[in-house]
Amino acid sequence: MKIITISREFGSGGRELGKRLADALGIPCYDHEIIEMIAKENGFDERYVANVSEKSIEAAYPLTIGHRFAMPPMQIMDQSIRVATAQRKIIENFAEQGDCVIVGRCADVILADMKPLNLFVYADMPSKVQRCMERAPEGENLTANELERKIKQIDKQRTQHHQMYSDTKWGNKEGYHLCINTSGKEIKKLIPALVQFVNDWFDE
Amino acid sequence: MKIITISREFGSGGRELGKRLADALGIPCYDHEIIEMIAKENGFDERYVANVSEKSIEAAYPLTIGHRFAMPPMQIMDQSIRVATAQRKIIENFAEQGDCVIVGRCADVILADMKPLNLFVYADMPSKVQRCMERAPEGENLTANELERKIKQIDKQRTQHHQMYSDTKWGNKEGYHLCINTSGKEIKKLIPALVQFVNDWFDE
Repeated sequence: MKIITISREFGSGGRELGKRLADALGIPCYDHEIIEMIAKENGFDERYVANVSEKSIEAAYPLTIGHRFAMPPMQIMDQSIRVATAQRKIIENFAEQGDCVIVGRCADVILADMKPLNLFVYADMPSKVQRCMERAPEGENLTANELERKIKQIDKQRTQHHQMYSDTKWGNKEGYHLCINTSGKEIKKLIPALVQFVNDWFDE
Repeated sequence: MKIITISREFGSGGRELGKRLADALGIPCYDHEIIEMIAKENGFDERYVANVSEKSIEAAYPLTIGHRFAMPPMQIMDQSIRVATAQRKIIENFAEQGDCVIVGRCADVILADMKPLNLFVYADMPSKVQRCMERAPEGENLTANELERKIKQIDKQRTQHHQMYSDTKWGNKEGYHLCINTSGKEIKKLIPALVQFVNDWFDE
């Protein structure tokens, strides 16, 4: 079975790479759909789940922890664990259904027993800032400096989230089979080689 | 022009990967040939040059520096600089002659202006030890522990040597375009995807 996980720096084009690779391979790509499924299954507010599922518990509650508690800390913890558990279950379900690409959500660690091919996508800061600017949602007009701060902040949260699952540091090449630098590159130009790589990787 | 540089952890199969990739692309691969050319051009003892060209100055003179000087320190320094200069010149000459693969020797940094494709090849320690055992020169019978020490020692020297040329740390993925984990893999299985990657990379 071909399970491909993609971990990626914010702004590196990792999600686009995942979708294009999955399309080229003719298999599904799971990304924020996962979060939506968690949200539906658990009846949580979708934005809340999106927040927890990629952030550490502390980062998800900047206003409640250490300041004023909207709900008791134990209850927050309990909800976070429920979200994390649901997320893990859904990722496992996806993987069991067959070949797929999963972007983010620590699927590389969660699915380790299934021997996924783990890719890491990264880029230099100017490339990431430029990509974010080109893809900014309507109404978002962040400066380059603001985007750089946002990128660092999100990647820091990804690092923290990864620590919940693994001792290997997020982004350390040792944790991945192939690390792809997308600086100044069009994602679609990388796909044919990656398709070949994936097919040869699982062909034994 | 396609210049591909390969940096590699000792025992990761980087040299084999370089040779196979060059063969598949139909271009030359330069490796220890570089050292031999330096040796001939400069009339140095070949083993001396091999030592300097991949080690820092201190590491190349464990018996002379800090102990008893076989020659005055300034002369040692002078010779090391001459070797490094010759090495750089030869690498530049190779690259100017056309498409090629260059393994090691900090060619990634030396040729930066020529926009090479920089690959990094790595593996986990058990894979590297196993590869070293399979490829041990006749008469070398190191234990797994001894090999692990040797691997760490050589990679430490590569890190130090790289520092002479660049602020980016040797092995940090940010310094490379693609990082390939060969743990438990046959090198030849990786070649078709890399050929595709190289061709698409330079096709713009």
